[in-house]
Amino acid sequence: MSESRQKQVADYLDSLQRRLCATVEALDPARQFERDVWERASGSGAMSGRGVTAIIEGGAVMERGGVALSDIEGTSLPPAATDRHPQLAGRAYRAQGVSVVMHPRNPHAPTSHMNVRHFSAGDTWWFGGGFDLTPYLPYEEDIRAWHRAAAEACAPFAPGLYTHARAHCDEYFFLKHRAEARGVGGLFYDDLNELTPGIGMSWERCFSFMQQVGNAYVDAYGAILHRRAGAPSNDRERRYQLYRRGRYVEFNLVFDRGTLFGLQSGGRTDAILMSMPPQVEWSYRSPDSELDARLLPYLTSRRGENWLG
Amino acid sequence: MSESRQKQVADYLDSLQRRLCATVEALDPARQFERDVWERASGSGAMSGRGVTAIIEGGAVMERGGVALSDIEGTSLPPAATDRHPQLAGRAYRAQGVSVVMHPRNPHAPTSHMNVRHFSAGDTWWFGGGFDLTPYLPYEEDIRAWHRAAAEACAPFAPGLYTHARAHCDEYFFLKHRAEARGVGGLFYDDLNELTPGIGMSWERCFSFMQQVGNAYVDAYGAILHRRAGAPSNDRERRYQLYRRGRYVEFNLVFDRGTLFGLQSGGRTDAILMSMPPQVEWSYRSPDSELDARLLPYLTSRRGENWLG
Repeated sequence: MSESRQKQVADYLDSLQRRLCATVEALDPARQFERDVWERASGSGAMSGRGVTAIIEGGAVMERGGVALSDIEGTSLPPAATDRHPQLAGRAYRAQGVSVVMHPRNPHAPTSHMNVRHFSAGDTWWFGGGFDLTPYLPYEEDIRAWHRAAAEACAPFAPGLYTHARAHCDEYFFLKHRAEARGVGGLFYDDLNELTPGIGMSWERCFSFMQQVGNAYVDAYGAILHRRAGAPSNDRERRYQLYRRGRYVEFNLVFDRGTLFGLQSGGRTDAILMSMPPQVEWSYRSPDSELDARLLPYLTSRRGENWLG
Repeated sequence: MSESRQKQVADYLDSLQRRLCATVEALDPARQFERDVWERASGSGAMSGRGVTAIIEGGAVMERGGVALSDIEGTSLPPAATDRHPQLAGRAYRAQGVSVVMHPRNPHAPTSHMNVRHFSAGDTWWFGGGFDLTPYLPYEEDIRAWHRAAAEACAPFAPGLYTHARAHCDEYFFLKHRAEARGVGGLFYDDLNELTPGIGMSWERCFSFMQQVGNAYVDAYGAILHRRAGAPSNDRERRYQLYRRGRYVEFNLVFDRGTLFGLQSGGRTDAILMSMPPQVEWSYRSPDSELDARLLPYLTSRRGENWLG
């Protein structure tokens, strides 16, 4: 992998993080992200890295949000990372990415998640990423706009890319023990390079797709926040949001591979768990069957619906 | 396994559940447990069962507490349950137990967990169980009394039983990703029967030990609640309690074998997750380094301390 490619990715990820933080800060100038810059020398382990964890907490708009930039180098790829690339085990590697979770305060504004990443080991490289939306009080206008943004980000690339990434997202963000999707979906792709069956693309095209995904997320989520962050809301809606956030915790701690891999591999726990909502409630029964009746169809029977019409 | 033994266990578990609920209700007569009686016929699957999930929520003393009695029968023991008993795979089995988690409202009152269970398959049987305490604002008086109750419950039985069950508890209730114990420990034992090396006992003695553990928990935790549930407390202590409850969620969803097995095997999700606290908070940094300085030593450097002196 040429250093120039890694440099291009690093520059884009840095600009993506800045743009994301600026978009949220513009909605609530009273509250800024705190940037926690970290560096880990290879020292004892075989892994070194640096990153910037940008966290906002207690804002009027963003109750808790994290935008984590990380750039990790290792001398020996762990076997857990190489299921699909057994020939790479033990090789030096570099993993670069930005990962985002946003928990707005207003229950009318959905939680969202985005991640883009680039992986290289010798001559081998691949990209992964995507974004998904988790509404509490669903608006079809938002859901349609979200999926339209996802489809448009994919459109300039391989023909099957959107269908693949949409389906992969629906499949991945699913709580088996609840038989519920985490949210209304979006995009999710992994292991994308020139060899990927059906949707393979050159490095340059894949990198361009990464940028489309990152930029589409900023625009699409920014627009939704703009519409919903100031909506009038009441205690009943807030209570429901806190209860539904429990599902987010359950997904991330029970199913999310990135979270579990991070926790198991001695990562920076509080940065990994920036995805946890700021306040959460659990109760034996849903506190609101009427609001369930509005939300749950989107997570069950209407899961996988085509929102592009 | 004779039916008379299973009947003895069922009768004890039923009385334990009633006694536990009554102990909590006596502290707050305004709020009663709701009893959710369930039954699952073998029908489609190879498992049938019944149980009573008793839940209290929103009490002045108990913000959320669950006492779950379950009695499951299966025609074919799943391989996951038989690591230590490979000869039992595919055999008919019966699993009886009571499981308890208590989240008091007052931050001066610790969260506690207790579980006792009896397993039988043909002529093979074993017992498991234990209890552990998770304080937020620690009192050495409570910690000492708790461990004394644990030691006294073990004393009439095998000489090494307390040492074994105390160590097993410290080892099991540990958050690797935080390098912190979940709480100050107590007892934990599994796979106890007449063949267990060092601490093996007859069925009658093991059953008697199960009763000692259940009864000791009711008395010891009841006494702590009595001392702490009415303690004056402030917003700062409450906030810290909500933050520390996040650790409880992390342990149960990431590490607890019973929770994960239940969720993976299509159990009753809301009953399994009765262990989740009613309200929880996450933040990037601890909200209170002073309260951390009071609590964390018990979960780190003083973990494993002998509290019996």
